[in-house]
Amino acid sequence: MDHEFMKLALTLAQSAKGQTSPNPMVGAVVVKDGRIVGTGAHLKAGEAHAEVHALNMAQEKAKGATIYVTLEPCSHYGRTPPCAKRIIESGIKRVVVACVDSNPEVGGKGVKMLEEAGIEVEVGVCEKEALDLNRAFFHFIETHRPYVTLKSASTLDGKTATVSGESKWITGAEARMDGHRLRHENDAILVGVGTVLADNPSLTTRLEGSDSRHPIRVVLDSKLRTPFDAQIVMDQLAQTLIFTLNTASEEKEWQLTSQGAKVIRLESLTIGNVLFELGKRDIQTILIEGGAEVHGSFIKEGFVNEVVQYLAPKLVGGKHASPVVGGEGIENLKEAVKLQVQSVTQLGDDIKILSRVRRE
Amino acid sequence: MDHEFMKLALTLAQSAKGQTSPNPMVGAVVVKDGRIVGTGAHLKAGEAHAEVHALNMAQEKAKGATIYVTLEPCSHYGRTPPCAKRIIESGIKRVVVACVDSNPEVGGKGVKMLEEAGIEVEVGVCEKEALDLNRAFFHFIETHRPYVTLKSASTLDGKTATVSGESKWITGAEARMDGHRLRHENDAILVGVGTVLADNPSLTTRLEGSDSRHPIRVVLDSKLRTPFDAQIVMDQLAQTLIFTLNTASEEKEWQLTSQGAKVIRLESLTIGNVLFELGKRDIQTILIEGGAEVHGSFIKEGFVNEVVQYLAPKLVGGKHASPVVGGEGIENLKEAVKLQVQSVTQLGDDIKILSRVRRE
Repeated sequence: MDHEFMKLALTLAQSAKGQTSPNPMVGAVVVKDGRIVGTGAHLKAGEAHAEVHALNMAQEKAKGATIYVTLEPCSHYGRTPPCAKRIIESGIKRVVVACVDSNPEVGGKGVKMLEEAGIEVEVGVCEKEALDLNRAFFHFIETHRPYVTLKSASTLDGKTATVSGESKWITGAEARMDGHRLRHENDAILVGVGTVLADNPSLTTRLEGSDSRHPIRVVLDSKLRTPFDAQIVMDQLAQTLIFTLNTASEEKEWQLTSQGAKVIRLESLTIGNVLFELGKRDIQTILIEGGAEVHGSFIKEGFVNEVVQYLAPKLVGGKHASPVVGGEGIENLKEAVKLQVQSVTQLGDDIKILSRVRRE
Repeated sequence: MDHEFMKLALTLAQSAKGQTSPNPMVGAVVVKDGRIVGTGAHLKAGEAHAEVHALNMAQEKAKGATIYVTLEPCSHYGRTPPCAKRIIESGIKRVVVACVDSNPEVGGKGVKMLEEAGIEVEVGVCEKEALDLNRAFFHFIETHRPYVTLKSASTLDGKTATVSGESKWITGAEARMDGHRLRHENDAILVGVGTVLADNPSLTTRLEGSDSRHPIRVVLDSKLRTPFDAQIVMDQLAQTLIFTLNTASEEKEWQLTSQGAKVIRLESLTIGNVLFELGKRDIQTILIEGGAEVHGSFIKEGFVNEVVQYLAPKLVGGKHASPVVGGEGIENLKEAVKLQVQSVTQLGDDIKILSRVRRE
């Protein structure tokens, strides 16, 4: 039954997707004599960890029980006291852990603390699923850069707009709503200044009938061409970071910052530099929403982790119509960015293809 | 049981896909007292029709039996005697027909001949499937132009080659083999002279371990730039038709025709004109294999019936990398070519998307 209870813990963990950052998603289930006596999930950074919620629910019944946790319990004092300590105090007899924390502050120490207290610990039940669930978190811990999801909405012939620039709307309502769910799940959203100038987008999350989280808005804008009255500057709905070069106009910077945007100057506006700066600001996940040149830079510099494509059953053609990925392009096929398709699903009339970049 | 027997007849008909042109695919099943006593399919133009094969198999047992035919039996003397006559002579009691022939020489006359002979005739069992099976044939009968299938092999970001022009091989072996099956099923294959110059392709059908049919090769070549030593000119494996303008060089024409190619001059090299000429030559189905400019012309002029796309899980990007559909492009989204996706399947690592153009 270990497998079943851990699956439930994983489902609990996943339920908080998009709201735990910069913490990982974690779920916990307490079982005594074959009956579930407590369940919990980590819901928000700074609030109780999954184990604490589950043990609070179990109360006295935790004594002699087994707890299933999707991630190794923490052993350090962070914003909350260590969960390993709380587990020991609760009288839990056995701890089943899906995967060990790759955070150097924790890595294996939680398991050690539990074992030293005489608790039986088993590690690795549903390990693959648990590592996968928090792949963005682990990527961030290991690289100090956000996990990058490139998103595109195009015709079946790979155009994101017609030759005349018309792009509203290529995909249908269901696909667009799914795109807003992606925004909800990411800490930040990034576009090039070309997209700001062409569409004046708000880049906020608009999910029907539900509260949603707005991502931090990031613009790549080497010459500070973002208008001071652009929606992302004026609407105050989420923080806006504008990356530019050291050489950009100070007057323009002043105009933008006086409206509430933050301007970050870099020596060189490479994707690597930008992601490094975003990582320093605890941004763990970022959604890239174009345009073609920006996608081209992410592809060329090799910083994409996942790709979400919405393909509308239409053809528009055009040598000069905007492609999904522009820029200089990769010259040789053997250097192409290789993907592993995760799923192909139908969303209304459109097709959604979800892929991950394969690291060889 | 009518439905079941007709399904079998449809399966028999479909088994000869790619080898009956210019005739339609037809299957027939003879049933007596609930037992199948004869089956047949039309295999090749000029040879016996499906009904004849099935009745030959049934022999005496046809007396008092029911015959299921996917298309109305013919009533005219063509290359073979009329099937309706043969059915009457065989003593068949009941004829079940999936769909009526839209060929003006036949349309409803077969049914009438049978009824006048006192045979019970039922029309419309599995009609939708039967019309769909021979959609290319019916399209040809109605428009006198071949049924057009546009084929592309691209990366997931819609590139058919890298910026440096590398295209071998974007898709894997399974997808390429499936592409050869498409060639086997089409009467002709069409490319632009740019493809001939870039790749010097043979455009033949190469299916492993089986005999296959080579399509007639068609090249759009306004200035007769096709080299006289191109594979499609030299190899004599299939007929090659080169469409050019009235103004093209006569010397070049002589060089090409002396090698066995046929040059067809037109006042104007529109897709409509080319398809009309091909229709006159009894070409009912044609596969369009690029390049981007040729696909662009077919899209823009509105002559595509089906689209087969092989998408490889790769990204290469590049503003100047060749797209699936180039050309001038369609300006307004509401004029986009609308598709109905028929199927999305996996072929090795690649994704195959089969769509039909929606006629509103």
